[in-house]
Amino acid sequence: MRAGVFDSGVGGLSVVKSLLAHHLFDEIIYYGDTARVPYGVKDQNTIIRYSLEALEFFKNFEIDVLICACNSVSAYAIPELRQKAPFPVFGVIEPGAIAVKNKIADKKAPILILGTKATIASQKYQTLLKNFGYENLSALAPTLFVPIVEEGLLDGPVLEQTMKHYFDPVDIDPKGIILGCTHFPLIQKPIQNYFPKATLIHSGEAIVEHLQASLQMPKTKTNTSLKLFSSENPENLKRIANQWLGLKP
Amino acid sequence: MRAGVFDSGVGGLSVVKSLLAHHLFDEIIYYGDTARVPYGVKDQNTIIRYSLEALEFFKNFEIDVLICACNSVSAYAIPELRQKAPFPVFGVIEPGAIAVKNKIADKKAPILILGTKATIASQKYQTLLKNFGYENLSALAPTLFVPIVEEGLLDGPVLEQTMKHYFDPVDIDPKGIILGCTHFPLIQKPIQNYFPKATLIHSGEAIVEHLQASLQMPKTKTNTSLKLFSSENPENLKRIANQWLGLKP
Repeated sequence: MRAGVFDSGVGGLSVVKSLLAHHLFDEIIYYGDTARVPYGVKDQNTIIRYSLEALEFFKNFEIDVLICACNSVSAYAIPELRQKAPFPVFGVIEPGAIAVKNKIADKKAPILILGTKATIASQKYQTLLKNFGYENLSALAPTLFVPIVEEGLLDGPVLEQTMKHYFDPVDIDPKGIILGCTHFPLIQKPIQNYFPKATLIHSGEAIVEHLQASLQMPKTKTNTSLKLFSSENPENLKRIANQWLGLKP
Repeated sequence: MRAGVFDSGVGGLSVVKSLLAHHLFDEIIYYGDTARVPYGVKDQNTIIRYSLEALEFFKNFEIDVLICACNSVSAYAIPELRQKAPFPVFGVIEPGAIAVKNKIADKKAPILILGTKATIASQKYQTLLKNFGYENLSALAPTLFVPIVEEGLLDGPVLEQTMKHYFDPVDIDPKGIILGCTHFPLIQKPIQNYFPKATLIHSGEAIVEHLQASLQMPKTKTNTSLKLFSSENPENLKRIANQWLGLKP
């Protein structure tokens, strides 16, 4: 099977990492809109327009399924993409909410949703989790985590001070934390250290479970081939793929 | 006189602030490409392409002069803009370098150039200052300053820690510092506190001096009218204009 993975930039490689680890696909076509990244600070209409343009890109490939790794795309553009796409389209928000349901039985447990401004404002995670019966939800957009990860500051005093800025005012003791942005899994460990009792929900792992359940996919035995594309010079994407995934595509 | 001011996003309002303070124009048409901001992490061809698209926007207005407030645009797209524009086009880099020449006589004085990755990589400031005879140049891209300013953290521990991260390794004692990004004037005071002996060069002030010298412009006596446009919903731009410029356009 051949999957398309769409992301606003390089962050979706954290989802690709999970897809590779579970050998779900024979081939992955990755497209990052690096010329217009980030989406998470942009408005709904812009995100939908850019997502539909990316769909045109994927129509050039015979993909069996399109995975939107970007939470901001998943928050706003899934209905439009599904309407226009000749293949199934999956976002990461529904899988993330289902992962909460699978992992945290107590519906009174405090859940902290972390995401971009766009994702949090969409209320998509909040609505799904409320429908699943969760009563104690907090949501937070730690906007600076994205550029900090892109700057490669995955630990150290800048990240620590920024975590204090966003997390010190959090007045719940979360039992579950949704890492609702592709960049956040790269600082999963310091987030876990800050909230040692919380179960962290990772979009990549959540979408793998969701795809396995939805498509009843067998693991492929061979390695997945990965092709990387971006809307500007792909050198930066390739460099980060090398760094994050430990491979030279 | 009517000026167009082009920026990648909201940052160019710091240049508008200087233009307003000096009453250079009767009207300013501001266009921020907020749907694709930031430019400073993008590659040269992307920046040129987006700048030429912005030029088409300005052709709808009878402007007398186009000012590129964005340093990344000024670094890469000025020749192409000048070739295609039916009006004079000014960037902020040449004015910034000229301001150094006017303010710092000692050619051996250490000069620190701060800018986005794109601006620093272009070597435009470095080349101009070398041509003016300055020998002791350092350049630095404190990438996180842009999102920190956009997050409104204009002072406090996150900014302090990030300044330490970028500035502690600087091994010169700069006599002049170029604030080579529209966002940096908003944290001019903490930068000045870190380098108390340095003269800070601000793109907005530099372009005002340059325009006055180049166009021999009289001050207009009336207030400047400001019209704000952006490539997505302009609410955010208007909110920040209100905050930064202290006006409700």
